[in-house]
Amino acid sequence: MREAYVIGAGQSPFGSYPDETYRSLFETAYERALDSVDGDFDPDRIDEAFLGTLGVGGRQIGLSGPAVTEHIGQHGIPTTRVENACAASGYAMRNAVSAVKSGMADLVLAGGYEVMTDTSADQTKWWLGVSGETEWERLSGTTFAGVYAQMASAYLDEYDATPEDLSRVAVKNHANGAENPNAHLGFTCSLEDATAAPAVADPLTLYHCCPTTDGASAALVASEEVARELSDVPVRVAASGAASGAVGLFQRDSLTSVPATVTAAERAYDQAGIEAGDVDFAEVHDCFAIAELLAYEDLGLCDRGEAPRLLREGVTDPDGDLPVNTSGGLKSKGHPIGATGTGQVVEAFEQLRGHGHVQVDGAERGLTHNVGGSGGGVTVHVFERGFGGGSA
Amino acid sequence: MREAYVIGAGQSPFGSYPDETYRSLFETAYERALDSVDGDFDPDRIDEAFLGTLGVGGRQIGLSGPAVTEHIGQHGIPTTRVENACAASGYAMRNAVSAVKSGMADLVLAGGYEVMTDTSADQTKWWLGVSGETEWERLSGTTFAGVYAQMASAYLDEYDATPEDLSRVAVKNHANGAENPNAHLGFTCSLEDATAAPAVADPLTLYHCCPTTDGASAALVASEEVARELSDVPVRVAASGAASGAVGLFQRDSLTSVPATVTAAERAYDQAGIEAGDVDFAEVHDCFAIAELLAYEDLGLCDRGEAPRLLREGVTDPDGDLPVNTSGGLKSKGHPIGATGTGQVVEAFEQLRGHGHVQVDGAERGLTHNVGGSGGGVTVHVFERGFGGGSA
Repeated sequence: MREAYVIGAGQSPFGSYPDETYRSLFETAYERALDSVDGDFDPDRIDEAFLGTLGVGGRQIGLSGPAVTEHIGQHGIPTTRVENACAASGYAMRNAVSAVKSGMADLVLAGGYEVMTDTSADQTKWWLGVSGETEWERLSGTTFAGVYAQMASAYLDEYDATPEDLSRVAVKNHANGAENPNAHLGFTCSLEDATAAPAVADPLTLYHCCPTTDGASAALVASEEVARELSDVPVRVAASGAASGAVGLFQRDSLTSVPATVTAAERAYDQAGIEAGDVDFAEVHDCFAIAELLAYEDLGLCDRGEAPRLLREGVTDPDGDLPVNTSGGLKSKGHPIGATGTGQVVEAFEQLRGHGHVQVDGAERGLTHNVGGSGGGVTVHVFERGFGGGSA
Repeated sequence: MREAYVIGAGQSPFGSYPDETYRSLFETAYERALDSVDGDFDPDRIDEAFLGTLGVGGRQIGLSGPAVTEHIGQHGIPTTRVENACAASGYAMRNAVSAVKSGMADLVLAGGYEVMTDTSADQTKWWLGVSGETEWERLSGTTFAGVYAQMASAYLDEYDATPEDLSRVAVKNHANGAENPNAHLGFTCSLEDATAAPAVADPLTLYHCCPTTDGASAALVASEEVARELSDVPVRVAASGAASGAVGLFQRDSLTSVPATVTAAERAYDQAGIEAGDVDFAEVHDCFAIAELLAYEDLGLCDRGEAPRLLREGVTDPDGDLPVNTSGGLKSKGHPIGATGTGQVVEAFEQLRGHGHVQVDGAERGLTHNVGGSGGGVTVHVFERGFGGGSA
């Protein structure tokens, strides 16, 4: 099987940008991705694009992928819009990897974009609602915060965990995001502030929830031949694991695990030939604080019920054994739905090339974990610095 | 490069089905696809799914792909929802082919679905509008019929063509569709009826426009090893050509050509090692009658301005030199947006295995042509009967 490498990656600033559009934000991400490539090359060499977006709001919904590639001057390249809710660009990344491995393309653009703040809060809630389970959850009034609050309540009930453990996710990720000039909420917060903030959906406070964000991200995925030509320090895609799960929470056996993460991670570790947690850092999908705790356990970074300990002991701090969300995560960096998956790839690319805003010492292998909805679709990618010898 | 084969394909009936859902319709298509496989096999061998849909209406919009695979009992397989407007499942097919060729999967489900009739006509028009060009076309009141009417007006002005030539598309495709038990509008119509029907957007009459349809379709794409095990007469994917084009009609140099079709076809012919038109039949994207005329020319089946002659001389009739839309096409079979691309694959599969409702004598190679919007995204696939020796 052919290898696939990330040779460039970049993101727009994440935030609220009333003067920007999904196209202009993606253009920024794309240009930054091009600028990050070591060698000079003609962007016309890009063969194909896979672009993730939920498509919130009343603007271009269908065919926005081709509208984006048209805007950036990539006229005519096959462009697939991928939508898997919040995992849209995790899947776009997977499909870009597949296109390179298949030999159908040698250089592929993966990315995502979302403009969420130019419509009413009700409209945004509607768009998010119809990407959760619609018939039994949305139509009965359940929001995403409500779904994750159910998970959080179950977790606090089941294990030795407290609301402060949820707040520890916020404190850590905001501390990281404060170093990231592209973060939406680039400020720090205290344990007390996070815990005492107004409830959004009990037990989740405002600080336990990611913001509503505009932004875009892009990655350039290349064959080994192209990577050897254009990149001094490419990032090998050692694995692309993916899995689906029940779209509705009520269809699952447990509220304290996302089975699709477990399966996607197993597939990824198997492809990469590594054991669970055998990575130097991870970007995980912390749309709500509880999601980061569940991710630790579902990814096998610790045993069941042990996630609070990792946070309390600083294991996932930047100077801990396994730093998580050095970018600030969805919590602080922001969560422009379709841009999040490849946004995580940007962080992995920068970490593995030694340019992280919060750099992990000696980062040689990292993991990204992107979740659609409350677990209906998940991707887990493993990235390694340099040219690998193995087969992914 | 690995070869990819279609070893099974099926569609639900296309029509107006108030008692069905996108999930139940897809289940029918999926079961028919399974039933069409020559050998017995465990559906759990399916590795991955790519499902196309625009997502019209107020039901599940985001994450509907995983909701569908969950419904059909394909728990946990990676499922990508693809949306490229009316070319959604043409691209889903392309990505399924890529997944097999990459070696990331050996047996992949490609498909699509749309339920269009359970919402108001205004809502349906809105959903279609936001998958055309939104900012300059939809917001100025232009509909899809309006866009294609501009193309038709330009064509009638530029070439020796008449409204009757548009009607000839309807007459031929309804005659074919009348033989297809899965067709939405399975009745014949006369040249006079089609021409004298009420105008939808002048010069397009009601009979020059495809219907609003519910339906689903599915294809099973396999590696050569799996195809040799499970299929007596597989259908080789000889080419998957794709291209994007300007999403807005006003961005194009000509109103009488869809550049993305030209490019996608060139790429497909090159991959298949054939010349333009070197196929025994074609399924082309006749969302409006003018689209079929443009397709003849953009696909290189005839010179510019020659499309009316093909229709007048019966070249594209079932007993002509190059039968087109033996299934009835979008015009008669129906156009459930996301289901159309793999719906065309169903027809190609059946033709190449000798089971067409309107069978083309000696069909060994066929082409499918799927257009998103008014040409923002196009796929052209070439299929060949049996195990091929070449490399696609």
